[in-house]
Amino acid sequence: MFQTFEPPTGAAETGPRVARVRALMVKAKIDALLVPRADEHQGEYVPGSADRLKWLTGFSGSAGSAAVGPSTAALFLDGRYTLQARSQIDTSLFEILQVPQNRPADWLKLTLPEGATVGFDPKLHTLAEIERLEDALAPKKIRLKALSRNLVDSAWGRKRPAPPAGPVKPHPLEYAGVPAEDKIAALQKLLAEAGEDAVALTLPDSIAWIFNIRGADVAHNPVVLAFAIVPREGKAELFVRPEKITEEARSHLAPVATLLSPDELAKRLAALKSDGKRVRLDPETASWWFAQQLGGAKRIRRGQDPCILPKARKNDAEIKGTRAAHLRDGVAVTRFLAWLDRQTAAGTIDEIAAAEKLEFFRAETQALKEISFDTISGSGPHGAIVHYRVTKATNRTLGAGELFLLDSGGQYVDGTTDITRTVAIGTPTREMCERFTLVLKGHIAIAVAHFPVGTRGVELDPLARAALWQRGLDFDHGTGHGVGSYLSVHEGPQSISKRGMAPLEPGMICSNEPGYYKEGAYGIRIENLVLVTPPQPIPGGEREMMAFEALTLAPIDRRLIVTEMLSADERAWMDRYHARVSALIGPELGPEERAWLEAATAPLA
Amino acid sequence: MFQTFEPPTGAAETGPRVARVRALMVKAKIDALLVPRADEHQGEYVPGSADRLKWLTGFSGSAGSAAVGPSTAALFLDGRYTLQARSQIDTSLFEILQVPQNRPADWLKLTLPEGATVGFDPKLHTLAEIERLEDALAPKKIRLKALSRNLVDSAWGRKRPAPPAGPVKPHPLEYAGVPAEDKIAALQKLLAEAGEDAVALTLPDSIAWIFNIRGADVAHNPVVLAFAIVPREGKAELFVRPEKITEEARSHLAPVATLLSPDELAKRLAALKSDGKRVRLDPETASWWFAQQLGGAKRIRRGQDPCILPKARKNDAEIKGTRAAHLRDGVAVTRFLAWLDRQTAAGTIDEIAAAEKLEFFRAETQALKEISFDTISGSGPHGAIVHYRVTKATNRTLGAGELFLLDSGGQYVDGTTDITRTVAIGTPTREMCERFTLVLKGHIAIAVAHFPVGTRGVELDPLARAALWQRGLDFDHGTGHGVGSYLSVHEGPQSISKRGMAPLEPGMICSNEPGYYKEGAYGIRIENLVLVTPPQPIPGGEREMMAFEALTLAPIDRRLIVTEMLSADERAWMDRYHARVSALIGPELGPEERAWLEAATAPLA
Repeated sequence: MFQTFEPPTGAAETGPRVARVRALMVKAKIDALLVPRADEHQGEYVPGSADRLKWLTGFSGSAGSAAVGPSTAALFLDGRYTLQARSQIDTSLFEILQVPQNRPADWLKLTLPEGATVGFDPKLHTLAEIERLEDALAPKKIRLKALSRNLVDSAWGRKRPAPPAGPVKPHPLEYAGVPAEDKIAALQKLLAEAGEDAVALTLPDSIAWIFNIRGADVAHNPVVLAFAIVPREGKAELFVRPEKITEEARSHLAPVATLLSPDELAKRLAALKSDGKRVRLDPETASWWFAQQLGGAKRIRRGQDPCILPKARKNDAEIKGTRAAHLRDGVAVTRFLAWLDRQTAAGTIDEIAAAEKLEFFRAETQALKEISFDTISGSGPHGAIVHYRVTKATNRTLGAGELFLLDSGGQYVDGTTDITRTVAIGTPTREMCERFTLVLKGHIAIAVAHFPVGTRGVELDPLARAALWQRGLDFDHGTGHGVGSYLSVHEGPQSISKRGMAPLEPGMICSNEPGYYKEGAYGIRIENLVLVTPPQPIPGGEREMMAFEALTLAPIDRRLIVTEMLSADERAWMDRYHARVSALIGPELGPEERAWLEAATAPLA
Repeated sequence: MFQTFEPPTGAAETGPRVARVRALMVKAKIDALLVPRADEHQGEYVPGSADRLKWLTGFSGSAGSAAVGPSTAALFLDGRYTLQARSQIDTSLFEILQVPQNRPADWLKLTLPEGATVGFDPKLHTLAEIERLEDALAPKKIRLKALSRNLVDSAWGRKRPAPPAGPVKPHPLEYAGVPAEDKIAALQKLLAEAGEDAVALTLPDSIAWIFNIRGADVAHNPVVLAFAIVPREGKAELFVRPEKITEEARSHLAPVATLLSPDELAKRLAALKSDGKRVRLDPETASWWFAQQLGGAKRIRRGQDPCILPKARKNDAEIKGTRAAHLRDGVAVTRFLAWLDRQTAAGTIDEIAAAEKLEFFRAETQALKEISFDTISGSGPHGAIVHYRVTKATNRTLGAGELFLLDSGGQYVDGTTDITRTVAIGTPTREMCERFTLVLKGHIAIAVAHFPVGTRGVELDPLARAALWQRGLDFDHGTGHGVGSYLSVHEGPQSISKRGMAPLEPGMICSNEPGYYKEGAYGIRIENLVLVTPPQPIPGGEREMMAFEALTLAPIDRRLIVTEMLSADERAWMDRYHARVSALIGPELGPEERAWLEAATAPLA
């Protein structure tokens, strides 16, 4: 199993831990300490050795930060996590505050006296984050102080886990499509054009992409925790702990990178500084420490991490790979859905059993490397918790007359999948069906959309909401995120959301996952991954338009569709999609499953 | 008449003018000179005395700028104007370059040597504009030099028109809704909360709004060209030429403002500077000169002009006024459309006659203060020119089998209108009708949209395009702009467009004007003004939603609608809108016109 269902450990020990950190704060002469969830790479998943926020507060979610003052402390979380945190942390130690309404800067200004000093670990905060914080604190003359050691690590002491040492493996050219040499050469050309001497890369998925390597340092993301410096000319430098380097990786990397220990990084940055090199740094993703080593915020060349955009534009090999991965994954999901329909008659399946069975079907493909995130397996009211993660403590039977929401994905060497299906257990209510159909209308609006070159995700997001809006309903997450190629299931720069300011480009993969959540009752989400297709002429039209190709292949529960709420075009899409699922998945199934699929993908009546 | 149809004067005199300016450039020791269209207030319309770009180049459009080098010069225009300019200017003197692909900075870098000096009039460029230019020119060490006198004015000499002296009139409380005292008090509260000592106001429509005054300094916009300083406490200072102040205006302004000559402005800003006051300035709208007078870019407090947002949120009196203005204007437009249908049988109407007749019907209301912009009266291929302005030289008969596009508006004391109707002259082709119907579908999508609090115009813009996109069509302008209350017909911060980042709020007025343009053949645009309505519960829904109320009242040409391309909901909206137009406009018409209106607003067959 790639996931556990253990309830998070309680907050019992956090009292003494906070006390130990406060004692160290006094010694360090600071009035408050910032403790972010982020590690040195600003990733969504962090290894146990870097999960300082959880160690200190008990909160186990994937985003947040804490601020510890002399006698008070606060945990800053977005709306997804405030409820979960309440059951995980000792609220007499930490006040829970929701961002963006309450930001750390506001709390610091409110609780600290004028002229106070706030300590931070310069490796854990981005340059942009510290600059914004400095601006916000300036009116109250509160000063930020970069600490030379991490006080949480000091308090944690010898019980802190060792940093991860997942082996580095080459990512075969068959799946990567472009040799690392060529990717680096393209990046170097870009540096030359920009008049920059080098770029420092700090994002693990950028490094995995450009060197065509994969690793096993953090859960669910096959990345290597490492840093790199790519000069305008000559060999790149890859800073990675030597014990991770397999013989295979060494010979793969030899032509393109000099391998150095992360301990060498400061020295190499200092050399770039003293040589007067113009080094690009991404202020939104690289830590403040990098800028400091390079001579300060004014010395660096600010620019986006140059791997982000080419990594997002999948090449032909990656597109071929993702199609194969989705076919394989679709078979597993379809087999699961068929199995579930057989079982629920008995009423004995619970959320954990469902998640386990789904992972079993994926593992049976013999190609599953990992799951791409902790499965969200929510029955009834749990389906309404957008980021629900089932544990033995919360586990719940799939009851008759309820909806079951299952959001999951697999990591395969040829692609990363992410799919949500919402299934009726027993007979759904009319309201459930109507709202499912409104969500489906939003899903179809994205699925069939044509849009011109230059269109950004922010412009498509409302198409997925309009049907809900007309009925006084909405959902509180984006319609879609970018997805990597055997990399992170959340990847930029594109997103179909209010924040989606990057133009969509051919080859980009996005999720299409509108939803509806009725608190305490049920949740609905319908998610396919979609591929942006190149601009194509439209018969009778004048301008070429891009569109989406659905990659995900699994039936959408027809029992939840109110056919008369769909337009003729919407019905046609639904039937067309189901016919395609049947044609591609059917041949991979046994007779019983195939019969089930035929019924599940029959045209709408 | 509030408009003329004279062709713009030729470019014959611009050669000697450019030569005179170049001679002055040598004396001023600059290698190039920037000549923007903007005046000191950055408005869309400028008085003749400030129309330096037209004097120098012959170009008469509403946006653009020129750069003059020692032997070459360029005119920078957006896509709307490049064609028009080609017929107006001497292209041996000025190269025409399209922004944003070719920006002045690029041209300057390309044509000037390293270390060159570029002169600019510090009163005509915003602070942000100069800062961006400095950044862009820095790599080539090109320096910007603020000139103490405007070289174009010097070259223009005594032939330059006198600055305008339109009388200032109080805007009655009945229409303004809120006394100037209260508006100023609210602004002062905001300054106190922000810790600012004063704000400098430079936008004429902000000043007209906050002091409840209207003027006649520029065409089509009833603004007063003036500046103001509003301190956190005490009386505002209004810098306006004394000859504009009528007795009526003097007693209206006495309680709220000290009246000073514009010549006093520099002195007052210097006093704020020497007193160490924190003065808010909008870097996007205030000139570089203001920042300079206040001690430089680092000394000012940057922030949006604080009148922009409250001015955009119309109050109850303004909403009542705009409804009355639209009813009045709708009667005039409907009478015009009825007249046009009677005339075109004879085939004798041309674009100018149509524009004149429409203005005649508006004038007949006895309430027309001005038109709100030069009427766009485009028959056949002229309809495809988005900002077409008919002159005696381009005037064209409305021919059978063509479309006629008419975009116009009125300024009334109670509101500003802006309406576009596209009318079939004779029998339209099937393609015209189909594309008209696609545009109508976009118009209706906006008209019926419900959307949650916080929704920005950028999120609604694609709803107006989706039907066109599906057919490989699009239009190259925003779907809608904000509109003032007896003020500018183009007003921010809201817009329904790719650039529409301001949340829509109740009381804001926008245009809803999707279009389609077939170059050389015909143009289609369907424009109503719409009012954002407050969040309202929706039966069966959970969240309150905002929506739009159509303010504009005039029939949409049914002869161009392909009914079977509309959904049932879309047909219902069309019939409902027409029924409302009939019910409200019908009683204001004579029997013949009323009969025409009844047929024009009959339900779709």
